[in-house]
Amino acid sequence: MAEHRKVYLNGEFVSEQDARISIFDSAVMFGDMVFEMTRVYNHEPFRLRHHLERLYASLKVTEIDPEMSIDEMEEATLKTIEVNKECFPKGLDFQIMHNVSRGPLPNYVRLFPNGIKPTVTINCWPLIWHLGPHAHEYETGIHLVITPQQSVPARFLDPKVKNRSRLYYQIANLQAEKFEKNASALLTDENGFITEGTGNNFFLIKDGELFTPEGRNILRGVTRGAVIELADELGIPCHETNLEPYDLANADEAFITSTTIAIMPATKFNGMEIGDGKVGPMVKSLTDAFSEMVGVDIVAQAKEYMEEAGVSI
Amino acid sequence: MAEHRKVYLNGEFVSEQDARISIFDSAVMFGDMVFEMTRVYNHEPFRLRHHLERLYASLKVTEIDPEMSIDEMEEATLKTIEVNKECFPKGLDFQIMHNVSRGPLPNYVRLFPNGIKPTVTINCWPLIWHLGPHAHEYETGIHLVITPQQSVPARFLDPKVKNRSRLYYQIANLQAEKFEKNASALLTDENGFITEGTGNNFFLIKDGELFTPEGRNILRGVTRGAVIELADELGIPCHETNLEPYDLANADEAFITSTTIAIMPATKFNGMEIGDGKVGPMVKSLTDAFSEMVGVDIVAQAKEYMEEAGVSI
Amino acid sequence: MAEHRKVYLNGEFVSEQDARISIFDSAVMFGDMVFEMTRVYNHEPFRLRHHLERLYASLKVTEIDPEMSIDEMEEATLKTIEVNKECFPKGLDFQIMHNVSRGPLPNYVRLFPNGIKPTVTINCWPLIWHLGPHAHEYETGIHLVITPQQSVPARFLDPKVKNRSRLYYQIANLQAEKFEKNASALLTDENGFITEGTGNNFFLIKDGELFTPEGRNILRGVTRGAVIELADELGIPCHETNLEPYDLANADEAFITSTTIAIMPATKFNGMEIGDGKVGPMVKSLTDAFSEMVGVDIVAQAKEYMEEAGVSI
Amino acid sequence: MAEHRKVYLNGEFVSEQDARISIFDSAVMFGDMVFEMTRVYNHEPFRLRHHLERLYASLKVTEIDPEMSIDEMEEATLKTIEVNKECFPKGLDFQIMHNVSRGPLPNYVRLFPNGIKPTVTINCWPLIWHLGPHAHEYETGIHLVITPQQSVPARFLDPKVKNRSRLYYQIANLQAEKFEKNASALLTDENGFITEGTGNNFFLIKDGELFTPEGRNILRGVTRGAVIELADELGIPCHETNLEPYDLANADEAFITSTTIAIMPATKFNGMEIGDGKVGPMVKSLTDAFSEMVGVDIVAQAKEYMEEAGVSI
Amino acid sequence: MAEHRKVYLNGEFVSEQDARISIFDSAVMFGDMVFEMTRVYNHEPFRLRHHLERLYASLKVTEIDPEMSIDEMEEATLKTIEVNKECFPKGLDFQIMHNVSRGPLPNYVRLFPNGIKPTVTINCWPLIWHLGPHAHEYETGIHLVITPQQSVPARFLDPKVKNRSRLYYQIANLQAEKFEKNASALLTDENGFITEGTGNNFFLIKDGELFTPEGRNILRGVTRGAVIELADELGIPCHETNLEPYDLANADEAFITSTTIAIMPATKFNGMEIGDGKVGPMVKSLTDAFSEMVGVDIVAQAKEYMEEAGVSI
Amino acid sequence: MAEHRKVYLNGEFVSEQDARISIFDSAVMFGDMVFEMTRVYNHEPFRLRHHLERLYASLKVTEIDPEMSIDEMEEATLKTIEVNKECFPKGLDFQIMHNVSRGPLPNYVRLFPNGIKPTVTINCWPLIWHLGPHAHEYETGIHLVITPQQSVPARFLDPKVKNRSRLYYQIANLQAEKFEKNASALLTDENGFITEGTGNNFFLIKDGELFTPEGRNILRGVTRGAVIELADELGIPCHETNLEPYDLANADEAFITSTTIAIMPATKFNGMEIGDGKVGPMVKSLTDAFSEMVGVDIVAQAKEYMEEAGVSI
Repeated sequence: MAEHRKVYLNGEFVSEQDARISIFDSAVMFGDMVFEMTRVYNHEPFRLRHHLERLYASLKVTEIDPEMSIDEMEEATLKTIEVNKECFPKGLDFQIMHNVSRGPLPNYVRLFPNGIKPTVTINCWPLIWHLGPHAHEYETGIHLVITPQQSVPARFLDPKVKNRSRLYYQIANLQAEKFEKNASALLTDENGFITEGTGNNFFLIKDGELFTPEGRNILRGVTRGAVIELADELGIPCHETNLEPYDLANADEAFITSTTIAIMPATKFNGMEIGDGKVGPMVKSLTDAFSEMVGVDIVAQAKEYMEEAGVSI
Repeated sequence: MAEHRKVYLNGEFVSEQDARISIFDSAVMFGDMVFEMTRVYNHEPFRLRHHLERLYASLKVTEIDPEMSIDEMEEATLKTIEVNKECFPKGLDFQIMHNVSRGPLPNYVRLFPNGIKPTVTINCWPLIWHLGPHAHEYETGIHLVITPQQSVPARFLDPKVKNRSRLYYQIANLQAEKFEKNASALLTDENGFITEGTGNNFFLIKDGELFTPEGRNILRGVTRGAVIELADELGIPCHETNLEPYDLANADEAFITSTTIAIMPATKFNGMEIGDGKVGPMVKSLTDAFSEMVGVDIVAQAKEYMEEAGVSI
Repeated sequence: MAEHRKVYLNGEFVSEQDARISIFDSAVMFGDMVFEMTRVYNHEPFRLRHHLERLYASLKVTEIDPEMSIDEMEEATLKTIEVNKECFPKGLDFQIMHNVSRGPLPNYVRLFPNGIKPTVTINCWPLIWHLGPHAHEYETGIHLVITPQQSVPARFLDPKVKNRSRLYYQIANLQAEKFEKNASALLTDENGFITEGTGNNFFLIKDGELFTPEGRNILRGVTRGAVIELADELGIPCHETNLEPYDLANADEAFITSTTIAIMPATKFNGMEIGDGKVGPMVKSLTDAFSEMVGVDIVAQAKEYMEEAGVSI
Repeated sequence: MAEHRKVYLNGEFVSEQDARISIFDSAVMFGDMVFEMTRVYNHEPFRLRHHLERLYASLKVTEIDPEMSIDEMEEATLKTIEVNKECFPKGLDFQIMHNVSRGPLPNYVRLFPNGIKPTVTINCWPLIWHLGPHAHEYETGIHLVITPQQSVPARFLDPKVKNRSRLYYQIANLQAEKFEKNASALLTDENGFITEGTGNNFFLIKDGELFTPEGRNILRGVTRGAVIELADELGIPCHETNLEPYDLANADEAFITSTTIAIMPATKFNGMEIGDGKVGPMVKSLTDAFSEMVGVDIVAQAKEYMEEAGVSI
Repeated sequence: MAEHRKVYLNGEFVSEQDARISIFDSAVMFGDMVFEMTRVYNHEPFRLRHHLERLYASLKVTEIDPEMSIDEMEEATLKTIEVNKECFPKGLDFQIMHNVSRGPLPNYVRLFPNGIKPTVTINCWPLIWHLGPHAHEYETGIHLVITPQQSVPARFLDPKVKNRSRLYYQIANLQAEKFEKNASALLTDENGFITEGTGNNFFLIKDGELFTPEGRNILRGVTRGAVIELADELGIPCHETNLEPYDLANADEAFITSTTIAIMPATKFNGMEIGDGKVGPMVKSLTDAFSEMVGVDIVAQAKEYMEEAGVSI
Repeated sequence: MAEHRKVYLNGEFVSEQDARISIFDSAVMFGDMVFEMTRVYNHEPFRLRHHLERLYASLKVTEIDPEMSIDEMEEATLKTIEVNKECFPKGLDFQIMHNVSRGPLPNYVRLFPNGIKPTVTINCWPLIWHLGPHAHEYETGIHLVITPQQSVPARFLDPKVKNRSRLYYQIANLQAEKFEKNASALLTDENGFITEGTGNNFFLIKDGELFTPEGRNILRGVTRGAVIELADELGIPCHETNLEPYDLANADEAFITSTTIAIMPATKFNGMEIGDGKVGPMVKSLTDAFSEMVGVDIVAQAKEYMEEAGVSI
């Protein structure tokens, strides 16, 4: 079934297998590419425009010119969804990835008869690919491990730019995996402040209030923003502030957020229990509110996917 | 003629146009790839084994398993050269690139029927592609500009690992270009010490002695190592030490080294002259000694390429 | 009279002279012990539960298992007070100290026939021992001196954990003493932000508002927390924020807080006057409010103790 | 048999069980104590005077006055050995510990009728207590793990002062233990440079040369000094320099040194093999030379102890 | 006409040409001088007292004794204005500068028969001198360039003290000028946070809210304070917070403030447009409100000066 | 007699009282001036050319154009000495100061009819003015005090550039003075490494070897260079390396160097004795060798000046 999906590649649609980038492209040569991940709920892209605005912010800071306006990018996205709609029957949500690189390096122009142009891809795949293996964790919570690998400070390489120079994410992932299989890396910055996971944002709950790192050495996640808004609607004070391992060790609850998993509880930290080691009431409330907002029971959906995972899709 | 070259890709030879990496590969997703550049002199690879040893050091630190021994990698390299030998007639030297990534991410295993394997490429192209545009600078010297973009410190992302998470190199390149067209970025670290260019090492000369940054927040370049050895043979004291912009401003001469350009004089710094603003005698001596060592007059060769550059190859 | 007090030591009561820790205990070997100080007002422990909660937070972060629940610890505390009640006639308030270490090191197990257990002590002594020598300073204010010794940043050794690895406190105390006899050390962190004294928290007053360092490189003091609450009740804006020597030099008033001395005015800073060099109206208001809250006129009590100090107790 | 050993405590000899420090002592209150460990070889203290000189250096920096000259301290040490000589029959080597604290805090002077004096202890115990559990590792090598806990930089708390404010050592030990049972913590500093273990110094070998961290954020170990001297005698170049995890990952061999274990090979690092994962030839040569110097085959002795360990002593 | 202005110099009035400081003065020897700039609007000094209070704060921190009370300084200022009133006909506003140094160094006392006294100057000059060359920028906006030269962190040399040790300002100015003629330097601190220009404060606007750096590594400008107050009156939320180049790259509008230019729009940043590259509506509103507050249309006045600039004054 | 000396000021000679800088000069406005101090021995300038070369290095880094070649500067210096020769009878040595600023700021061009030119002064005064008050310390040694004020790191403001933005020197001087009258400030950098005094370099002696800070966050003093050369001639190993307070606390001897005082022993450090608290043999040897090199017994000369000090000169 995989072969059914088509990938937008510089204005054309190609098969997933052919969604490849030249080794002479700046994306491969320098990790010089920015991207976005967007999720659909009931086939409806969640805050697509917000994601595209962040994409264009990343492009501006890195001075990559996509040679497309944000409206054209949105249109291409909708076209990509349309092209692939038969791959995603009702009940099967998916996620969308946008990539934009500066294109082939000028030294290799002879290999690119059409000249040096940015490389743009848009594609989508079943949510279950990412969500399936983690679906059971909505009930058990994940185990967060602070790794020796720290976040690269924003003044060297800004994580607010959603970029592809993330070798250190993979190193952090390896370190967490060594600590305990399936543990999840939690990064800190040079000051020892908690920043983010390798692809997710972090929240903790103490005395009925929400705390999350300042939007500095982190990606300012779209789901993170949605949770802050939800908290405001629910009357839960939410503080963007400096957080340290001490705070997590003594938190009542904790969770991470990302486009794919929305809200995922964390119940262990460096081998210790967070609170009583169980998914807590505040996480549940926020998850319920989030489900209501997006019109999908995210835990139920995950459970369903969990059962299907392993099945050929 | 470009279409004649073949690229080693995971054990097979494909055309340059088809030397592409899946967007689902960790190389693209995370900049999670290590690489090497090797240059030939008179069709003889210069210190190939040394480059491969550094490649395997990079692989070890990033815990990427290439599923090939270093001997197999060397053999594949020689095979690649052999396959492409007709593309490089006598007098036309070339450079060799090795890439190794962790391979496709496990989430996308369904798209890779042969399973998750590392991605390995080996390819080569005419030296003139990189060297041509800079060849005249052997006589004028280049202009070094210290950019606001600093080196990422090694404790966050180690530049001794020759890796592809180098978005910040491109940002530094843009900054240098804005300062003056064709100026060359010179990075500093968080302490203000000079580190390296975006793909080259830095040396200065003061009172007849050579100085180069400690092998810490830099790539420990093969050519850099060769120059240190040459200096020893020539009886020129060479110090690996902390260097600052003050030292460069008051240096007698300066130069950079890289695989492609070997030794390139620098005659300007942040808009000021270095020494008397001309290519100096020590740089010339070292260049002569280097030429002798490799059996190619690197300046003459460059001049020849300069004349040919722009000509279809 | 001293010999009357009994110390809780691992479940038994021993005399003060015998309240000693083995040189083979991790407490002595590594400064590997956490502790609390609690004060009574009119023989009533002030926020004992709050202190014990902080003790258990310290234990969790250091992964010391006290082998007692917090309720058992509270019970043992009350028992200790009961056992010593005759030592503290009406009018003589006292303070309570809790110590918990990881216990003897496993290498020395042969010397501990009962095995390796945590070391827990609870004891109390007349407040006048600590308060007496400083009592006159409620009227004159103390002299704060910024020392070359800085706070150890939390990412290396967290001061929010009330621990016994505080050699640097003693070094700071020596430095302040050299500056001026009886001057009081005020620490700063690596950024130059004011943190805390060597056993107290810091506040300043500017334009009718309270300012105190963020709860980061400091102990989050119980009295500090009480003052923040009081300020809220009194309608005084209170900011937890980054403070620098510049701010103190230009403050209207300043004071420190600790369990033992509650609120102590500071009237000099590095040899300069703070404000007009006298105890100011805001400090007086806060002191009055605090006295009312605890039911003891803390200045009057101190004055009384001051007169008695030096008298055998 | 343990009860036979006597401990020097402030001029008197007491039983080991009574070698205890008051909870009112600055040693317990602040971790305000400096110390030394000395080992005997064939009942001969190794570089005792060197250890005592370092002790007096620690005392000077912390401004603790031991109220004993270094000669008196040496004499007391010899007396302690003499007093305990029957506890250590031929073949049973031991180690000696010196502790000096500032003594009881002045606030508690009433509890110390003899006044405030420094607390000095000297004692000794069978080497096998520390060595036994590790003896088999001379043959397998140990596993070094870089922990998230870093060394406290010397400007905050100087590790060159051998002090008892080392809570962070215990935290690092816990982290290493979680990574893998019996793994050994290897600390780095804020720059990412390798510093030391929690009670040992670090060396690596690359291309036949020795490398060890600069004497900055480390204890300048006596055994470390002896190895540097040995290397000089054996004609092995030895560099005190900045070392990084990259260097260890690509080292040929590595080892740690301490008073108790002398030279211990390390064969794994963060789960990876060092060199070929076996004890290497350079470590063996240095160990042989060390054994010869001290007149004891340290590996054979350890093996003997290993067999005895567990046996009541 | 210039010769008409008189400068207050240590209690006397001298001509501008004679307003000079001895090379033996601490001001020249060490840059050991603090100062203020005040602007008049319609000949009325704007917040003079506020400026003088900041001057006395600077004096306190540097421990320079001006040997004048703040009231005497104010009186001398008004006298200086009075003395020069004929130089400034209606319509010609001016600015006032106060300088206070510690005076001649004691080593050179023999050269100062009246002894060592602080050096105090007060003088004024036509606003057009500073404003004229920039007046057209109220309509085009300025170009902000982040320089490699960073702000000296406050813990080394506090920018909140308005002092004359600002060589690094001149270096930053040179760097900005090299980037593009007339570009304006924007400094960052060691964390990469935006601080200030070389004599002005920075604001950005995003989604209708104002953001400005925390008052830490900056001068806490009087005009900055006035803008914050204005924003409050206009109901515009204003945040003093950590700002980064990312934030400026994605801002809607930006501007700088200073005594001389009040509010000046910025429309370019590092060669990129800010927002749509035009002076935006929020800047205009704030400028209008500011003009109303001071009773002078600051843009119209500047335009008038622009036309006159170059004309002999 | 003072009135006899003439000062070179932009090509003319004026009286010392008239050696003044306009308040509109960048020197006063920004501390934007570089300078040199040179001392004569027997009326012979010591290493004048070396000082001028350093002056021109400072000028290059700050991009101040003196509009004079180094040869012209040397000539003007000799002319200044010539002009003043009658002020310095035999036996009365003197020192020479060079100042160069960027000149008046362009905004004030109307006040400078001759246009904007650099400001250059050269002058000299009796050595006794600086040396007299310290002369007795050659026998007692000085007291070094580490101040809370640290060196500004070179990446913010380079101390290798001998510049006039040194407010922080004066703050350090005040701090040392408060610690103990006549104590001398010793600065450290952000890493805690000893750097320099406020106008002198630092050396310590340990086990017969010389140690001095690396030439990084310090002025690379001419006298410092001379001492390093002398040590080499005397066969004393001299290390330029990172030094910490620990090293000074445990040094055998210490001293400072500067143009004016040449070599001055330090016998106390933070209130503790250095070595045995007396001027040591190595300092004496170096002082003797230095005296021989310059042809003046520097201690005897100082003693003579000491007796004369206070006498009108």
